[in-house]
Amino acid sequence: MQTELSKKLGVEHAIFGFTPFPAVAAAISRAGGFGVLGAVRYTAPDELARDLDWMEEHVDGKPYGLDVVMPATKVEGVTEADVEAMIPEGHRQFVRDTLAKHGVPELAEGEASGWRITGWMEQVARNQLDVAFDYPIRLLANALGSPPADVIRRAHDHDVLVAALAGSARHARKHADAGIDIVVAQGYEAGGHTGEIASMVLTPEAVDAVAPLPVLAAGGIGSGQQIAAALALGAQGVWLGSLWLTTTEADLHSPALTRKLLAAGSGDTVRSRALTGKPARQLRTEWTDAWDDPQGPGTLPMPLQGLLVAEAVSRIQKYEVQELLGTPVGQIVGRMNSERSVQAVFDDLTRGFEQAVDRVIRIAGRGSQS
Amino acid sequence: MQTELSKKLGVEHAIFGFTPFPAVAAAISRAGGFGVLGAVRYTAPDELARDLDWMEEHVDGKPYGLDVVMPATKVEGVTEADVEAMIPEGHRQFVRDTLAKHGVPELAEGEASGWRITGWMEQVARNQLDVAFDYPIRLLANALGSPPADVIRRAHDHDVLVAALAGSARHARKHADAGIDIVVAQGYEAGGHTGEIASMVLTPEAVDAVAPLPVLAAGGIGSGQQIAAALALGAQGVWLGSLWLTTTEADLHSPALTRKLLAAGSGDTVRSRALTGKPARQLRTEWTDAWDDPQGPGTLPMPLQGLLVAEAVSRIQKYEVQELLGTPVGQIVGRMNSERSVQAVFDDLTRGFEQAVDRVIRIAGRGSQS
Repeated sequence: MQTELSKKLGVEHAIFGFTPFPAVAAAISRAGGFGVLGAVRYTAPDELARDLDWMEEHVDGKPYGLDVVMPATKVEGVTEADVEAMIPEGHRQFVRDTLAKHGVPELAEGEASGWRITGWMEQVARNQLDVAFDYPIRLLANALGSPPADVIRRAHDHDVLVAALAGSARHARKHADAGIDIVVAQGYEAGGHTGEIASMVLTPEAVDAVAPLPVLAAGGIGSGQQIAAALALGAQGVWLGSLWLTTTEADLHSPALTRKLLAAGSGDTVRSRALTGKPARQLRTEWTDAWDDPQGPGTLPMPLQGLLVAEAVSRIQKYEVQELLGTPVGQIVGRMNSERSVQAVFDDLTRGFEQAVDRVIRIAGRGSQS
Repeated sequence: MQTELSKKLGVEHAIFGFTPFPAVAAAISRAGGFGVLGAVRYTAPDELARDLDWMEEHVDGKPYGLDVVMPATKVEGVTEADVEAMIPEGHRQFVRDTLAKHGVPELAEGEASGWRITGWMEQVARNQLDVAFDYPIRLLANALGSPPADVIRRAHDHDVLVAALAGSARHARKHADAGIDIVVAQGYEAGGHTGEIASMVLTPEAVDAVAPLPVLAAGGIGSGQQIAAALALGAQGVWLGSLWLTTTEADLHSPALTRKLLAAGSGDTVRSRALTGKPARQLRTEWTDAWDDPQGPGTLPMPLQGLLVAEAVSRIQKYEVQELLGTPVGQIVGRMNSERSVQAVFDDLTRGFEQAVDRVIRIAGRGSQS
């Protein structure tokens, strides 16, 4: 499965795997794909350095990348405390009431919330980059808009390709104008922040909008058939995030959450502002229902909502409160029905892709060629 | 482009075109696809007979089908007047106020509303079938659930295949259990009534759910690349509705509406209950905004909403009130940018399909075969 982009990056298959887990990212690269480590959870640069050291030891020399969350709009001199002060008391009370209603215990004294807003702030992302450019990363992806011009220049100086996520053709063109190298077209069905245009429509629109820049299709892809479909739509590869959450190398720190993911169907996700204030697809839970309820206070804009719910999300995860426990994940969760190694998942993807190609060749009457 | 299903029906391309216009349906069949005439607007059986006579004269002996709207749940002895009586006065006033706000003129005295609820009632659909089975239709599709068992039997006695639309794998399985022959998997991005699972995810789920029954992919398909993608996903063909609305053979009775369709982007539709009471994708307008506004009265359940807005929709269409003028259409509207003949659209689809197949073959490294 070779495209111009996969050849440029020196990978065997045009399959890009986004994951917050170094063990998963390294396994994807070793399997012949391109592992992309999500950096949002690294608030301390030395933690990122430690995990990139680990990656270096475990990718067997294969290429990999890093995904940061750098907001397009820079907010100067605003601290986390400033943002905290903007949260209405009624919303804080709603969080307390909802947690109390479900009997969610408090964190132990001095126990930090694991899920922090700070990873979303530009300075944190810049500190991450200072670390990352010391490593031979081949790709830098940004999940929120185009990275600033100086970051793109710095990446190019390090021979690092820059990718940015887009939910519309207009958004994709904006990225191209900013000088990025790869557009990740994130369809409605994708996990995490996503727009309303489905992959079937978005992928070819993005391809047409930014050609000859390469587009990766993201959203709804978790099988070789879906990879073949995305490539037929003009993508130069696929960007898969959700699928790795139930691999044996992933470390969700919650068997209950893994069980929920394995049991969920494609209809069990919702595009909700509950987690960050922007629409993000995730498991539908009583927590998302509470925020999406027209009778409730509703969500706050980004970054307030993320800050507001950070501790609550940590508590829900730590105590595995079944009915509230969720995670960003796409509609492809319906296909994630067993815990398997990254290599086993990868073998399925490539085998399924070859079968889908056989099928299309047969239907197109190119049978004499197979 | 040949699948088992297209061979069974004797068509050259596995492209099924759904349309309310006989001239479009006939042109699709003549072009080598399978035209499916939507029957919902025929309240009088003799009008349907007249148009089927016309079809017979214009399909050049090629096969075609009929699409009816037969509700899964039968409501015995309920008249249109009974349903009318269930509509709250506040909702009627909201319709009057919204039309007045936009200066929409009244219909002339005695002028009937063109858009009627009655086509949605079972008896009307049964009268349509009495007519249709006198013609050599090859396919009967139902847009609302599985048809009743006696209708399926009657179709099979006439050697007519039965298709039903499904928005989820569970829904598809229910149809299969009812004895239908073809599932049309209608993705989130489709025009008209649709669920929340996007085609990229829904198509393979439906295929797995009902195999070996054939699945047609619907939603988001308007190019040869998208047809190749749908076939890679396991579909035995594609079901296209929106794409034909801007063909020269279509008769929308509204140049303003055609212009809106040609200008609209993929982000200009909304999945709204405004038209029928069930979520249906359509152009987003100030009319859909009014119904979807949390400050408004909200929509009524099917069939009340359809009855409530029938006359208003006729007035908006007749007087081409720009900001309110809409129609069911999918996200593929972003690709409908010129008025062309059905044959020209068809040529584009088949050419684009061959190019997409070439592309997939190249990426898969089967290049030596091409």
